[in-house]
Amino acid sequence: MIVPRVAVGTDIHAFAAGRPCWLAGLHWPGEDGLAGHSDADVVAHAACNALLSAAGLGDLGANFGVDQPEWAAASGVTLLTESARRVRAAGYAIGNVSVQVVGNRPRIGPRRDEAQQVLSAAVGAPVTVTAATSDGLGFTGRGEGLAGIAVALVYDASAG
Amino acid sequence: MIVPRVAVGTDIHAFAAGRPCWLAGLHWPGEDGLAGHSDADVVAHAACNALLSAAGLGDLGANFGVDQPEWAAASGVTLLTESARRVRAAGYAIGNVSVQVVGNRPRIGPRRDEAQQVLSAAVGAPVTVTAATSDGLGFTGRGEGLAGIAVALVYDASAG
Amino acid sequence: MIVPRVAVGTDIHAFAAGRPCWLAGLHWPGEDGLAGHSDADVVAHAACNALLSAAGLGDLGANFGVDQPEWAAASGVTLLTESARRVRAAGYAIGNVSVQVVGNRPRIGPRRDEAQQVLSAAVGAPVTVTAATSDGLGFTGRGEGLAGIAVALVYDASAG
Repeated sequence: MIVPRVAVGTDIHAFAAGRPCWLAGLHWPGEDGLAGHSDADVVAHAACNALLSAAGLGDLGANFGVDQPEWAAASGVTLLTESARRVRAAGYAIGNVSVQVVGNRPRIGPRRDEAQQVLSAAVGAPVTVTAATSDGLGFTGRGEGLAGIAVALVYDASAG
Repeated sequence: MIVPRVAVGTDIHAFAAGRPCWLAGLHWPGEDGLAGHSDADVVAHAACNALLSAAGLGDLGANFGVDQPEWAAASGVTLLTESARRVRAAGYAIGNVSVQVVGNRPRIGPRRDEAQQVLSAAVGAPVTVTAATSDGLGFTGRGEGLAGIAVALVYDASAG
Repeated sequence: MIVPRVAVGTDIHAFAAGRPCWLAGLHWPGEDGLAGHSDADVVAHAACNALLSAAGLGDLGANFGVDQPEWAAASGVTLLTESARRVRAAGYAIGNVSVQVVGNRPRIGPRRDEAQQVLSAAVGAPVTVTAATSDGLGFTGRGEGLAGIAVALVYDASAG
């Protein structure tokens, strides 16, 4: 019997006017970017946290934090690719990942397919991306930043 | 081997004094309702987002957004029923859905069974509903609105 | 065919200067604690909500609320142990639990292994703990409190 493992991961970053916007593995011309490590892609980073947690490998900070400066400038997609590699190296196969963005901009819908293709290629398994606003409430509603929340499913690669 | 797919979905709406309150598929007499599309039922809408994401069908906006005006007045339960239908039409069976409400009011506990029955009937699979406050913090703590967060599990309907 | 059930759970508490800090099943000397019922361990409480929801047993309030005063002083680990017992008594086996903490302090990383051991022992299944800040945004960013968000996977104990 195969019992998969599920996990949750989040990531939140503040907007930083004038920075290029990278979100869900894509560059969004004309949109304000996010402050933080690397490209601050909250979708990719939330997915990393969920995948790493599912495999019991800690979180983004433990894997790519300040004491691993070789990752300091890595893109979200690079970190996601490497997270998936580490999950598999730990003996797990990856079932799927789902990420929701909470915030006002950019609008995900028109580029959802493109984002899902880039992220799924990075993970080597289906990644779906959805979006919602917070109806003007909280820091996402005031346009101060974006939140990503992800769940991932992995299972013992030696099963089945 | 059957590997299910998991997904996450959220929904957030602001309170609008004087609107009827629809939440978790139920009408709550005497409670302030939520602003937004249709009935703004954050529990039903979060469940829609999770189910649609699990099946790779996008999100609420993509399925029932402003360019599909025939859904503009649809209740949360109607949207949830239709979301579940679309998930099955895409070849998936639905395992279960779990939704947590974050906010002060209404109190879910006394009507949890009723809510779960209505939502489970809409989905055609078990839907569980839980609730928590945010201890006075943030927009939910200030009573400005409600947040719903859902996870769903689906699997290939041709399996097993 | 075994179809597991997934669920989500959250918990949020405000900091209360001078209270002992209990988080993720551990005591954190020198850190401000959280206000609330019992020890206000948002990690353990979020895990309880996810586990109880997965088994259709309601939430923390329904199981250990003000009308069950015998639990009023119970630690998060005690409530998590009892939640897992109730989930099994309802006929489910527990696959795993994943919890993410959102907030500034305490820093989870250095004590992650210790926390995961305590929580996994309480649940009788793997519990992973991750952490992220909210980049200075919202109530977690202002250091007003901590949020925990958990997912859990359970399955029919008579299967397999």
